Amino acid sequence: MSKMIGASEQPLICTPLVGKKRENVLGELADVLAKKPDIIEWRADFFEEIDQTDRVINLAKEIKEMAGDIPLIFTIRSIREGGQPIPLSDEEAIELNATICRNTKIEYVDCELSNKKEHIQYLRKIAAENGTRIVASYHNFDSTPSQKFIAQKLEEAEQYQLDVAKVAVMPQKLEDVLTLLSVTLEAKNRLKIPLITMSMGKYGAISRMIGGVFGSALTFAVGAKSSAPGQVPIEDLKTVLEVIERSMKSK
Amino acid sequence: MSKMIGASEQPLICTPLVGKKRENVLGELADVLAKKPDIIEWRADFFEEIDQTDRVINLAKEIKEMAGDIPLIFTIRSIREGGQPIPLSDEEAIELNATICRNTKIEYVDCELSNKKEHIQYLRKIAAENGTRIVASYHNFDSTPSQKFIAQKLEEAEQYQLDVAKVAVMPQKLEDVLTLLSVTLEAKNRLKIPLITMSMGKYGAISRMIGGVFGSALTFAVGAKSSAPGQVPIEDLKTVLEVIERSMKSK
Repeated sequence: MSKMIGASEQPLICTPLVGKKRENVLGELADVLAKKPDIIEWRADFFEEIDQTDRVINLAKEIKEMAGDIPLIFTIRSIREGGQPIPLSDEEAIELNATICRNTKIEYVDCELSNKKEHIQYLRKIAAENGTRIVASYHNFDSTPSQKFIAQKLEEAEQYQLDVAKVAVMPQKLEDVLTLLSVTLEAKNRLKIPLITMSMGKYGAISRMIGGVFGSALTFAVGAKSSAPGQVPIEDLKTVLEVIERSMKSK
Repeated sequence: MSKMIGASEQPLICTPLVGKKRENVLGELADVLAKKPDIIEWRADFFEEIDQTDRVINLAKEIKEMAGDIPLIFTIRSIREGGQPIPLSDEEAIELNATICRNTKIEYVDCELSNKKEHIQYLRKIAAENGTRIVASYHNFDSTPSQKFIAQKLEEAEQYQLDVAKVAVMPQKLEDVLTLLSVTLEAKNRLKIPLITMSMGKYGAISRMIGGVFGSALTFAVGAKSSAPGQVPIEDLKTVLEVIERSMKSK
């Protein structure tokens, strides 16, 4: 059963693929599929042939074929937002995303809100023409900005008419985790598009478990290898989400 | 291994006994012991012979004997704070607590902060003379008071020189759960005595899972029967606490 982001009350569990070579990525995918995630993100910035468009497209198609009904997110995380160093310019990365939209049936591409306005609008047009959805993202691996700043980032995604708004921030203290949960709850009540939010690192790990209660539509779990600090193994996360779901249904 | 409240980083799991007759209480206790809680609370306001002091003392001794190393909390929850109707006046309830301190080896007695100042001071004196500790409690089954009000309640427990401060409040919206977690975190950094806090009901259920991260030293779980809305079965709670502990230890 294909699960789209924001379609259900329960948060989706997403596992990342972070292999460097085709065979690593496909090996990880096989491991991850056995654990039945709801959705899979291919972190293409880890792929060492990212500058060879045909290889990226071919691997994307192979992943899609293997993943079957499970939706995919194609992501080139920039080095500015915690990704790997890649030989592509921002403009080339946007063009690669557009090529993914045109040539594959991948459901989502990630687009950082730190991209130039014209690049975001261009990708939005191409995605819309091809039925691909865009996850508009903001990451901060150093700190948790103010509640107002985070709210603005989520709002920006909606203003650009993108499909999903994602914010991942690093807490420096436990108060920051409460800030992230609070802004999620507030934005969930105000915005129309689905939200994905998380507080990273060890303090933030609990937000990956309870974020769904406050309005986050998706949570990242470790399938084979983690892609960001604080990710919980998928088996553990599934168990915790089941307990939370049962608790929320009780009196 | 006997676990006292506040002695470890991990929150203790406490299961309540809510039987009406001696045989119900002892049956529940047997069920609960099999699930290995860290601590057990006898909610004596459920006991239908509460007005017969010798029967209460005898049953308290039987519970203590069966519980072995597991510490006990003796609690007469008043009807004002969500307890059962009992034929004892507040003064008589305080006297029964004092009698428990004098005649049993039960580790903790609960004393509501809504008691008269002189009653609290009297119980504190008797408890101190007998090596019994006092859990000073405040409950609100209707709503979540302001952060300031909750902080004052926790502080009051320390001002009375009682041993543990407990606050249980009902959220009317998810924001209230964040308020409770936030005040717990703040009070934990400011006060010296261990805290027990929880947000009740279905919204609050997550606070019973993650409260320990924010400074709550104990969480109530359903062993045999629940004593308040939102309590999670002990097996589920143990699983979730283990996942949280592992996550917090990771990078």
